[in-house]
Amino acid sequence: MVMETGIEFTASGTVTSPRGFHAGATYAGIKKKTDGVLDLGILFSETSCVAAALFTTSRIKAAPIVLSQQRLKSGRAVAVVVNSGCANAFTGEPGLADAAEMAALAARAIGLSPEDVLVASTGVTGEPLPLELIRAGIGQIALSADGGHELARAITTTDTVQKEVAVKAGDSGFIIGGIAKGSGMIHPELGTLLCFLTTDARVDIDFLRASLKKAVDASFNMVSIDGDTSPSDMVLIMANGLAENETITPNSEPAGVFQQALEQVCIYLAKSIARDGEGASKLIEVTVSGAASAAEARLAARTVVSSPLVKAAVHGNDPNWGRIFAAVGRSKVEVLESKIDLHLGDICLVRAGSPQPFDKNTAVQLLGKDEVPIIVNLNLGTASATAWGCDLSEEYVTINSQYTT
Amino acid sequence: MVMETGIEFTASGTVTSPRGFHAGATYAGIKKKTDGVLDLGILFSETSCVAAALFTTSRIKAAPIVLSQQRLKSGRAVAVVVNSGCANAFTGEPGLADAAEMAALAARAIGLSPEDVLVASTGVTGEPLPLELIRAGIGQIALSADGGHELARAITTTDTVQKEVAVKAGDSGFIIGGIAKGSGMIHPELGTLLCFLTTDARVDIDFLRASLKKAVDASFNMVSIDGDTSPSDMVLIMANGLAENETITPNSEPAGVFQQALEQVCIYLAKSIARDGEGASKLIEVTVSGAASAAEARLAARTVVSSPLVKAAVHGNDPNWGRIFAAVGRSKVEVLESKIDLHLGDICLVRAGSPQPFDKNTAVQLLGKDEVPIIVNLNLGTASATAWGCDLSEEYVTINSQYTT
Repeated sequence: MVMETGIEFTASGTVTSPRGFHAGATYAGIKKKTDGVLDLGILFSETSCVAAALFTTSRIKAAPIVLSQQRLKSGRAVAVVVNSGCANAFTGEPGLADAAEMAALAARAIGLSPEDVLVASTGVTGEPLPLELIRAGIGQIALSADGGHELARAITTTDTVQKEVAVKAGDSGFIIGGIAKGSGMIHPELGTLLCFLTTDARVDIDFLRASLKKAVDASFNMVSIDGDTSPSDMVLIMANGLAENETITPNSEPAGVFQQALEQVCIYLAKSIARDGEGASKLIEVTVSGAASAAEARLAARTVVSSPLVKAAVHGNDPNWGRIFAAVGRSKVEVLESKIDLHLGDICLVRAGSPQPFDKNTAVQLLGKDEVPIIVNLNLGTASATAWGCDLSEEYVTINSQYTT
Repeated sequence: MVMETGIEFTASGTVTSPRGFHAGATYAGIKKKTDGVLDLGILFSETSCVAAALFTTSRIKAAPIVLSQQRLKSGRAVAVVVNSGCANAFTGEPGLADAAEMAALAARAIGLSPEDVLVASTGVTGEPLPLELIRAGIGQIALSADGGHELARAITTTDTVQKEVAVKAGDSGFIIGGIAKGSGMIHPELGTLLCFLTTDARVDIDFLRASLKKAVDASFNMVSIDGDTSPSDMVLIMANGLAENETITPNSEPAGVFQQALEQVCIYLAKSIARDGEGASKLIEVTVSGAASAAEARLAARTVVSSPLVKAAVHGNDPNWGRIFAAVGRSKVEVLESKIDLHLGDICLVRAGSPQPFDKNTAVQLLGKDEVPIIVNLNLGTASATAWGCDLSEEYVTINSQYTT
């Protein structure tokens, strides 16, 4: 697929697609053993990177978050070590020591100083990190230039597919790659997810931080699976500069294409996460336009896509549009009932607040597709926003009522 | 059961238990026909009442809400006509005319002027009110002094039990009765519910309004089933003064006992609603104490009881307490991980932020009971609050994916 401004998706793109990034993973025995399971991995750059991240907004943060947040104050990083199966969350002081030890083990294996290594963990909370398994596992990891695929697999928990992508910004010559995980505990404000982004572009740290924030606001912060937010969320970007472009700053010419490319990568991964929500059978895309402000458009779109009743109705192919109105109403954004238009794909359900006759069979068919587009026009202003989520199925409940037992 | 201050629950108490209230209901054909189904009813007081209500906070309000809100500005009402099966919501101007016509039909049948009659509707949204059925049905309603039970049945939708109660304030001699409905779309801030409260006490209108607000804050506003709020929520209280007590004002002696009795009634009905949540098999009661402020205690308790992951874990009898911590953390209240105590009933799971060894079988057994008490002590301040909800089951999804189709 080629997009405007020469940004194109690369075939089999992943987090190691940009120059100079290596990755690898192994099965350390932290997760249950199944075919091809991986649960421990490393992402590494040949040269030190300018790095920025966004972390969970939860008031109780997992140990790896506390450690990585501290280390990233320098604006630099060289590697990340990550495990799935145990989140090292709600583990107090011992948890912090374990996270530091995990970074130190990885640093020793690669030949770095511990401060160069960030840590991420995902999985069950309230249980201590199995350090002995990690100690043994790290020695087994072989880093390679296409190890991103393995790493994408190693960070999954209840995910059913791995999420990876890379884009190439044609003229500017740099690549942005990324992998992500997330399936439950997904909600706006950095729903439970890990995302590692890499680029060989050379960028200014302040630009990188602002650019990441903007891209995440348009992607991961617009995704909801279940309204829960985890203490382990982390979206990290590392830029190693090997593309040897002139350093990108907010006002430099390639800033626009970098921003656009990063947003494409983040939106691709965010949609992959929504589509793979626990128990989900389809992607719901809610666009709210005509809002009084961008904040209101975002709030309304997120409220609709998060509504359990909307999600359950979409699951059952039930064109029960009153639930969409109910969600818009309770979002507290400025609305005038008599102005709202509502479309399901190209089927008009409501015009200027009045229910329109529509063919129920066509609507049921549309709801049965892999992607369900819901479009709400408030007809009050010019702001718009899009949010992504998934349907709510019986399977979501089954998965989540038997997670630790 | 006798409570302190002489407030006691009356046997078979309902909304017609206070003197001078009559009610009745019929099957008008709005809901699907099943054994004993009722879908249209009237509540009526022999004498004009001082009346107050709280309505949905949604920005898109159903027609009956708009009408009743307007009429209650006078602080007086004599009767309410209510139907289930059709919410008359998202029906625009024609919906408003229909709600007014429904009130007029009831007024004519009872011999009142239309302004004395309030209207409430619950059920499917986006469909016009079947006025012909209502016109025919109203003529069939026979009002009686124990008609509260029928009315309680007539207002149900996906409810599996009817919710009714009355208490008698011993010395003061007045009675407060109530009925409620609500099963899905239930959330803090007046989750989708109808509640009609009556009393024969003579009360000052300003006191009644404040007293209702306070009671609802401690009860219905602390209940969550699914995070959705409906456009039709309404909690109404009518006081006809037939107990002939001295008018209760904020500073008069019986103000305290009235407040306490009203809160008991509201909490009883709110818990009945939580327990009967769509697909629910048990009641979850979350108490947060030691919070920095009452607002923070309320927010934390509501966040935990609303978490789909906590609800699914309780459903599966899974003592996955990390999800409770995750919910407390994302509620954004002031917390210090190292201070939090967490109990499941009398089992201590976490003390001062450290996971405690506990017997998993005992915890699983406790989670298997009808009522699951979760107690979080933040150990930061002195404020506390209790919220109620229910487990999340596969059946919730099944019910809500096939509601209109």
